[in-house]
Parts: sequence; C-alpha cells; structure tokens
Amino acid sequence: MARIEYPAEVRALVSELKRLPGVGPRSAERIAVFLLQSPKASPRELSGALQQCAGIVRACPTCGFFTGESGCAVCSEQGRDTAVLCVVEQPTDVLPIERSGVFRGLYHCLGGRLSPLDGVRPEDLRIGELVRRVRDTPGAEVILATSSDVEGEATSNYLSDVLSSCDCSVTRLAQGLPAGGGLEFADELTLSRAFEGRR
Amino acid sequence: MARIEYPAEVRALVSELKRLPGVGPRSAERIAVFLLQSPKASPRELSGALQQCAGIVRACPTCGFFTGESGCAVCSEQGRDTAVLCVVEQPTDVLPIERSGVFRGLYHCLGGRLSPLDGVRPEDLRIGELVRRVRDTPGAEVILATSSDVEGEATSNYLSDVLSSCDCSVTRLAQGLPAGGGLEFADELTLSRAFEGRR
Repeated sequence: MARIEYPAEVRALVSELKRLPGVGPRSAERIAVFLLQSPKASPRELSGALQQCAGIVRACPTCGFFTGESGCAVCSEQGRDTAVLCVVEQPTDVLPIERSGVFRGLYHCLGGRLSPLDGVRPEDLRIGELVRRVRDTPGAEVILATSSDVEGEATSNYLSDVLSSCDCSVTRLAQGLPAGGGLEFADELTLSRAFEGRR
Repeated sequence: MARIEYPAEVRALVSELKRLPGVGPRSAERIAVFLLQSPKASPRELSGALQQCAGIVRACPTCGFFTGESGCAVCSEQGRDTAVLCVVEQPTDVLPIERSGVFRGLYHCLGGRLSPLDGVRPEDLRIGELVRRVRDTPGAEVILATSSDVEGEATSNYLSDVLSSCDCSVTRLAQGLPAGGGLEFADELTLSRAFEGRR
C-alpha cells in the first residue's frame, strides 16, 4: 500500500523552503505547516512579496546596490561626496557602513570576491565598471572595504594593481582590535596587524 | 539626510519572512538577500508553491488531514480498517503514526487540544464531527492519541466522557519508557506510568 504523504502541493512548498539558507528539512516542514494552518500566517502576502522582489528589485547599474521601483537610494541621494568610492564585496555590506554613519561617499559593490577555488575570476566581478567609474572621476579616492580574510585581501591587492594606472588614491580600511574587545579575545593575526598599524 | 535602507520591496519581503516560525530578523534578511541574488534561488517557484498551497490545500472535511487536488490520501486509501479511528491533535501527527506502520485505520484530527488558558474550548475543536463519525460507525474502536502532557490528557479525558454515550470502545496510547531509553534518562512521571502500566 502507498505510504501516506502530505499532498503534492505541500511537498512542493516544503522542497522550495528547504533550499533557503539555514532552513533544514524539519524547519521547512514546520514553516509549511505554519503557513497552511496558522491564523497568523499570510502565505498570499509572502507570495506577493516574493513576486514583487523577483519582478522589480535589481542591482543598480552604477553601484550594484539593490534598487526597487524608486531607483537607487544611494546614488540618487543628494549631498553625497561623489569623489569618494567605497568598494565592497556585496550589496549587503552597504547597510552596516551606512549604519556607522562614518562614510558619506558612494559605493561600488563588486558582487563577490576573487576566489580561484570557487571559480570566481576578475571578469566575474564588477571590476571593469569600477575602473570606468574611477576614470570618469579624476582625483577620486577609492576605499577598499573587502573582508580582511585571505580572499578579501587578495581581491584588494588585485584592485590596487588595476587602479594604479588611474588618477586616484587608493586606501584600505584599517585592521586592528575591534572596539570594546579585550586583548585576551584577539587572535594572533589581529594582534600583529594592530601592532603594525599602531599610531 | 534619510538613512539608506533596502528598497521597499525588499523590506516587505523581509517583514513577511520574519513572521515565519524560527526565522528571526537576521535570518529573514539573509534569506531575502539569498532569494534576490543567489543563482541557486528561485523566488518565483517559491511564490508559486505558496499560491498553490494557499489556493488548493484544505483540511479534509472528514478527518482533518491536509488534502490537495487529489483528495484525502488517508480517507481515500483502499484497505484501511474503517472501524478504528485514531484521534490526534494536529494533522501533522498523522505522518509519524503512518511512518511507524503500526496503525491501519482512519484518523480524526481535532485541530488542537483543550486549553482554557489559551482560550481553546471544546467547541473550537472538531469534537462534534468526531461524535458524528463514531455514531455513524456502530461498534467502532476509538484510539485517543493526544499528547501525554496535561492539556493532552485533559483533552483525552473530555473525549472519553463525551464518547461514553456512544456505541464504541475507547482506548488510549500506552505510556511508559521510550524504546531504547535507559532508566537513567526517564523522568519520575514516565517511570511511575511505566510501573502502573506494567504487564
């Protein structure tokens, strides 16, 4: 006799939910059942929000940040210093920098970082667009804000080389102790960089 | 100056995702960004699966299990013993029992359990439907398979009372040591029930 399963529609939903990051088979089932029977659930609203996002949200052709119907919130904002470009790996890196309030220039999202092991080569990133933007802004300052791990460093090194022929100054974010972090929690590499960068 | 945020469409998606069980603000953002930019993501498929579920999946009017377009997989299955009814709290309780392969009768999902504190009264559960089914099947066996916690027990007691006027035998799932569980892991209540139910 056939084994009883959820209806095909529910199984299709579970298998789509399972593909989301951080959602395993059990939580996918839990979420599906919640969406099906909880009075607090709104599967149609979630479905609509997904449709909207898939249909409307794009990467800004200039900076690579997410843009909706109202255009790029960063590029279109008045009063930003257009002569300073902060280069980040992902559009998601923009918000933490914005929250810090310390940077008032424009961004350039690469869309990733160089990673030969994962098959990410320079032509897979938005590096050509970066060079074009820098050429169009003589005397610009470019702040490389990639991660401070091996691949992020390699990406920064590569960009420094590429940009050396342009009329711009290239800086990198400082490395050292995180604010509020005691010495006992700092790893050796962080400590050695904090010493190198002492001032 | 306005603070930079994700576009309205992305924020709407994040706020819908945050309402799912086990998904906090950070994972909602992570899932939204994955859906927006990962080549492995399929937001339209997820949206479609949600629409399908919301539009098609219902509770079976007889047993309360989920039914899709193909009808109730349990009620429509040939060869089940229609004289035995297993009463469970939720439709999700059906699959674990089916997986055990030990039960070949029909189910009745109550849609919850009695809980005065949460305002769940007898008329909020599918108890009237249960009584009707039992009356329509003279000599039926009703197996009460509610949880073995206080509210599940109270629900079982209530159902026993209600069904006492019907022509049916009412049993409950045995309580005792879980299979493979050593005595050292058993709590006092489980042990005392294992002693009471010894055979």
